[in-house]
Amino acid sequence: MRILLTNDDGIFARGIYALYQAFKDDYEVHVVAPESEQSAVGHAISLSCPLRVKEVYRNGTFYGYAVSGTPADSVKIAVNELLKSSPDMVISGINLGPNVGINVLYSGTVSAATEASILGIPALAVSLDSYEKPDFTPAATFAKKLVKKIMKTKLPAGVCLNVNVPALPLHEIKGVALTRQATVPLRDRFEKRVDPRMHVYYWEAGDGFLYPPDPDTDIYALSQGMISITPIHHDLTHYAALEEFKKMPSIYLPE
Amino acid sequence: MRILLTNDDGIFARGIYALYQAFKDDYEVHVVAPESEQSAVGHAISLSCPLRVKEVYRNGTFYGYAVSGTPADSVKIAVNELLKSSPDMVISGINLGPNVGINVLYSGTVSAATEASILGIPALAVSLDSYEKPDFTPAATFAKKLVKKIMKTKLPAGVCLNVNVPALPLHEIKGVALTRQATVPLRDRFEKRVDPRMHVYYWEAGDGFLYPPDPDTDIYALSQGMISITPIHHDLTHYAALEEFKKMPSIYLPE
Repeated sequence: MRILLTNDDGIFARGIYALYQAFKDDYEVHVVAPESEQSAVGHAISLSCPLRVKEVYRNGTFYGYAVSGTPADSVKIAVNELLKSSPDMVISGINLGPNVGINVLYSGTVSAATEASILGIPALAVSLDSYEKPDFTPAATFAKKLVKKIMKTKLPAGVCLNVNVPALPLHEIKGVALTRQATVPLRDRFEKRVDPRMHVYYWEAGDGFLYPPDPDTDIYALSQGMISITPIHHDLTHYAALEEFKKMPSIYLPE
Repeated sequence: MRILLTNDDGIFARGIYALYQAFKDDYEVHVVAPESEQSAVGHAISLSCPLRVKEVYRNGTFYGYAVSGTPADSVKIAVNELLKSSPDMVISGINLGPNVGINVLYSGTVSAATEASILGIPALAVSLDSYEKPDFTPAATFAKKLVKKIMKTKLPAGVCLNVNVPALPLHEIKGVALTRQATVPLRDRFEKRVDPRMHVYYWEAGDGFLYPPDPDTDIYALSQGMISITPIHHDLTHYAALEEFKKMPSIYLPE
């Protein structure tokens, strides 16, 4: 069993190291991750600039490859160039901070898992619901249990799992919920500031969501102290709308 | 009718100017777009760095705001900060090059339209199937006709349109197809090169798709000289998998 670990907080982040520690004894673990933090890069890839790859040692032991690009770049180059053979699973994380609701679209952590499932590799993204200095061990332990289950049962083709874990000891976690991604908008707000040379700049200072999420969503489950698992995919088609449009083509199709 | 134009090729690109010319006489048109090219940035937003905004004049006429960020940043800051009131529609493009299949996930052009629909604003992304020096006028003319139709009939909430136009004169275009996003993987390939200081670097050199797309997809329609319209949304949940998982929770839920 060959596992590829990646993330968007960078190869030196604590979350990916917690995964490495949890998996290294039972699996063949490879680490290919961005050399620096890549948060909120969404599903970006590098086309107009080259990628550099550095071997990274940690505690004197070979640890992984640092890539001068995005999480999606890291998965692509790991699978196509750096690993001798394709991994059996890709795990992205553990992200410092949750990736739920609309934020899933901005998440480099999630896009790495999505990129893996585009390439036909089962994948999960794991995020921890804390921006402080959390203990990553419970989330890593849960990830390992989940991976064992997935290995046995397989994921449907093209589907990866977006997993969000409360920042609590395992015994305080209220359970596991299978959820949908909430679509409630973020509360956007830009702070207008003036720099030392008296020029205006803006800084995204939005926080939280515009209204409470539905109970069957990832945001809600996490707010209740539950682990949220959302099956996601990379087909953005809105099929219900497509069927509606096809019933009245003249409305949507200019002559 | 207030229209916001944006793109990922940058505010000085030809495609957005073609849209401006097509819409400016009949609509109140605002332009807020990245100051530089932002291709393949996906749905990135800027959180860790501030945004600068510059007024841009073109041909002596006020033309728009250039934002030091991504397409999604541009839409967010336009709606929340720069425009006096929310636009009735957001049009992103006209992109130099198609945005079909898996590439939709990497597309800054599409993510700007998606960001608008997250904010509750009807939106379309328009891309032209050419990387050469195409004539943007047919695509701009089509976009204008399509916008007139959408104004009358409305789009379903949370749905935006991903429109791809062949680089042909309007009378040579074979028709308009309502399509789904193809999910066929790209043919990835990294070129390994050596720089003048003898260090290795890699460059994504992939081209094309791994196998032929299905006939009901965006890629196929475009390859047949048709305009492709795909309704897309920002909910990544795979509902069929979610229902399956809920039937056998013990399989996916570690104890």
